[in-house]
Amino acid sequence: MMISSTSNIRIKSIRKLKEKKERQDSGLFYIEGLRIVIEAFDKGAKIKTLIVNYDLLKNERGLALVEKANEQGIEVLEVSRDVFESIALKQNPQGLAAVAAQQLFKLDEIDTRDFGLWTALDSIADPGNLGTVMRTMDAVGGNGLILIGPTVDPYDTLAMRASMGALFSLKIVKASAEEFARWKRATSIPMIGSSDKASELYTEVEYPRDLILLMGSERQGMQEYLEKLCNQIVRISMVGSSDSLNLSIANAVILYEIFKQSHAGEQDKK
Amino acid sequence: MMISSTSNIRIKSIRKLKEKKERQDSGLFYIEGLRIVIEAFDKGAKIKTLIVNYDLLKNERGLALVEKANEQGIEVLEVSRDVFESIALKQNPQGLAAVAAQQLFKLDEIDTRDFGLWTALDSIADPGNLGTVMRTMDAVGGNGLILIGPTVDPYDTLAMRASMGALFSLKIVKASAEEFARWKRATSIPMIGSSDKASELYTEVEYPRDLILLMGSERQGMQEYLEKLCNQIVRISMVGSSDSLNLSIANAVILYEIFKQSHAGEQDKK
Repeated sequence: MMISSTSNIRIKSIRKLKEKKERQDSGLFYIEGLRIVIEAFDKGAKIKTLIVNYDLLKNERGLALVEKANEQGIEVLEVSRDVFESIALKQNPQGLAAVAAQQLFKLDEIDTRDFGLWTALDSIADPGNLGTVMRTMDAVGGNGLILIGPTVDPYDTLAMRASMGALFSLKIVKASAEEFARWKRATSIPMIGSSDKASELYTEVEYPRDLILLMGSERQGMQEYLEKLCNQIVRISMVGSSDSLNLSIANAVILYEIFKQSHAGEQDKK
Repeated sequence: MMISSTSNIRIKSIRKLKEKKERQDSGLFYIEGLRIVIEAFDKGAKIKTLIVNYDLLKNERGLALVEKANEQGIEVLEVSRDVFESIALKQNPQGLAAVAAQQLFKLDEIDTRDFGLWTALDSIADPGNLGTVMRTMDAVGGNGLILIGPTVDPYDTLAMRASMGALFSLKIVKASAEEFARWKRATSIPMIGSSDKASELYTEVEYPRDLILLMGSERQGMQEYLEKLCNQIVRISMVGSSDSLNLSIANAVILYEIFKQSHAGEQDKK
């Protein structure tokens, strides 16, 4: 049966997922758009409900996904165009959205034997920066993100949009400052921090295969307790009047230096 | 005399500068915050009016700037705290703002004999991306930006905020698609484009000292007519499921490869 009332209780609760508090309380999040919903599904996100409007959803891959979801016993909520548009964040929505369960991990759930490349972000505040870091991390074949301290919600709409689906390819770990410090001291994974006050240039360092790249926050830069946890600190060369780069830019510049050194670039898609 | 009415006609017209249309019609723009106003002043931006509230402005450098402006015959508008807060974009404003004249250049105003490094952006839509490209360009010692086709306003509040003052260090040129194509054909400045469809990796290219790095738009990527104008196209290696990077990230990754090759990194601030 199609839901055609915008004040339907299910619809109201889906709409509420745009609020951080509601996401926290429910452990759920909302995604919309053909590309991102398909990506979430393919990457094994825990999709609870698909929301569909057949007036808007004409895309074959989208329709195939609805069928697959039906087969797998995932709830499919058919809604009227009005209802869909009342939920949708974007104008001209594509008729496909989903509610999924969040998957945030703890530090002790990280497999340190097959660690690979991670970015740790201290107190990141800007959702666009967080999403962009995810997108770049995915592009260089990184494994995950550690979010330290108070952080913008990785399931924030803007963060997810900026991540372009990379959220579903990476392991996202949340930790308090204390938890992170304790874990780092107990593990032998090397950590390299980025700071414009460091003396060593990012291009002069040999990056190990297993590595945490630690970025300070947008406002405070690298905090002292985190700097002390680093095995090395690097800086990015600058000549202009700027005294710093955007966080996601600094992260990407170092990530691509690491990526280049790993020769992974030679095995890329082409 | 202090302006204490939020509906004062001058105050109203300043507040209106947050709208693109008003900026276009007046050729002016609005900036606020200690750091950015001081930077604009120091970099020779054409400041028409300083807006000051002395309850909020306690910073010595800020007060020194007001004095200097007075000496140079720049209008200083003293306003009440209420009025300042009615203009301010940010919460907890620092009591210093300014109105300045826009400085957009045409292609034939570029000195091609001392060209250096430029980024050209086709139809850029996101103000955060534009501001971030400016910030990175400044950090690598770039000379300017060419904005091709319909573009987000470089004097947009979000763009300026993301640029962190870099707007005042770079020459900003606007051109239509036709103007740009004509200019590029007439000049011998090499242009390298970025596209995920290119076969050559960005790390395998030798970048000349005078160079335009051309980025396609967020939505369309590299348009065919622009690709044809390029002397070379490069791509950035990727291994993840993402098929592209954020525009400002892709720009920065290539800019830092160019920067590294130029050895300018060895002469940086430290």
